[in-house]
Amino acid sequence: MVRDARLGQQLTFLVEIDRLKSVLRQTTLCDGSRHENSAEHSWHLAAMAGILAEYAPPGVDWTRLIRMLLVHDIVEIDAGDAFAYDATANVGRVEREQLAAERIFSLLPAEQATELRDLWEEFEAQTTIEAKVAAAFDRLQPLLNNYSARGGSWRAHGVTRSQVLWRMDPIRESLPAIWPAVLQIISVSCEAGYILDDA
Amino acid sequence: MVRDARLGQQLTFLVEIDRLKSVLRQTTLCDGSRHENSAEHSWHLAAMAGILAEYAPPGVDWTRLIRMLLVHDIVEIDAGDAFAYDATANVGRVEREQLAAERIFSLLPAEQATELRDLWEEFEAQTTIEAKVAAAFDRLQPLLNNYSARGGSWRAHGVTRSQVLWRMDPIRESLPAIWPAVLQIISVSCEAGYILDDA
Repeated sequence: MVRDARLGQQLTFLVEIDRLKSVLRQTTLCDGSRHENSAEHSWHLAAMAGILAEYAPPGVDWTRLIRMLLVHDIVEIDAGDAFAYDATANVGRVEREQLAAERIFSLLPAEQATELRDLWEEFEAQTTIEAKVAAAFDRLQPLLNNYSARGGSWRAHGVTRSQVLWRMDPIRESLPAIWPAVLQIISVSCEAGYILDDA
Repeated sequence: MVRDARLGQQLTFLVEIDRLKSVLRQTTLCDGSRHENSAEHSWHLAAMAGILAEYAPPGVDWTRLIRMLLVHDIVEIDAGDAFAYDATANVGRVEREQLAAERIFSLLPAEQATELRDLWEEFEAQTTIEAKVAAAFDRLQPLLNNYSARGGSWRAHGVTRSQVLWRMDPIRESLPAIWPAVLQIISVSCEAGYILDDA
């Protein structure tokens, strides 16, 4: 695209990741009008991390956390989004995502490719505090959207209270200050019929 | 939504800004398949800022820059996106956006409302280095998308080389290391008929 080879690689990568805007998730917008895509979802998570920073454990590196949230779904360009509550769709997910990471991050200059891939691997490995808090936000956002959309993808797929509790568990662990509110939203959603109450 | 009043305000704000996913811009996706929305555009800018950080002047506060990019378009939820090359659409824009900022940021607890509004005002005022670099990325991204989409919104609106040069000028000023590549993309786009060549 341009004469400067390094900048050319970077711009090629930036054009490539535009495709994340075409990867649809099961979750809908809060108004229920359509499914959301993984690019706008990533924006929502990064904004959420800024607003809810005070609830996270001390010592979180926020710059790294937000960069992680911005890139955590990029592999879905090749691998697609596997619906969290669908065990079949998650078979082979890890292998598909590894191949995707290899192809997509390698568009960048080598040291940037390594840096972004490491950030993504860190998110997947779920061992650092930043990865755990990022995963917790990645659970909280669909909770808000499904609740706002009067059930959204929960209702579309007949998701139960115990499934949602299992799915939200990273919030209990990594953003415990928010957990009572999560339980409250789940209870109200069960009462309203957005979630099937199997309690 | 939840018993904790402060967290409730924050979650209400996070649900409200979901509407940015429904604000359409003139720019299309890189594959030209549809117009992009302001939420996924904001994600693309924040990712771009991470990848192209090395071209910015020294001393930029990257955490503040990325937070600015994440919130810079939120006022469009009420005010809409005014097409950059349409003078009529820009009449009254400042007043509409001020009213939008007042309503939307005020959903947050007071000190967070002030913090985000200040970030947005800083972007609009274009006096700090972070605001200038943010604006430069905000020009570069549509250039990449229009070029990739074989003209995109340039072609749809008969935009000329001198208009694009005027629009891209913040890049020349704040990301000068990228400017030669911008000129190259504009030249190729004129040759290809994506931009009307009035040179």
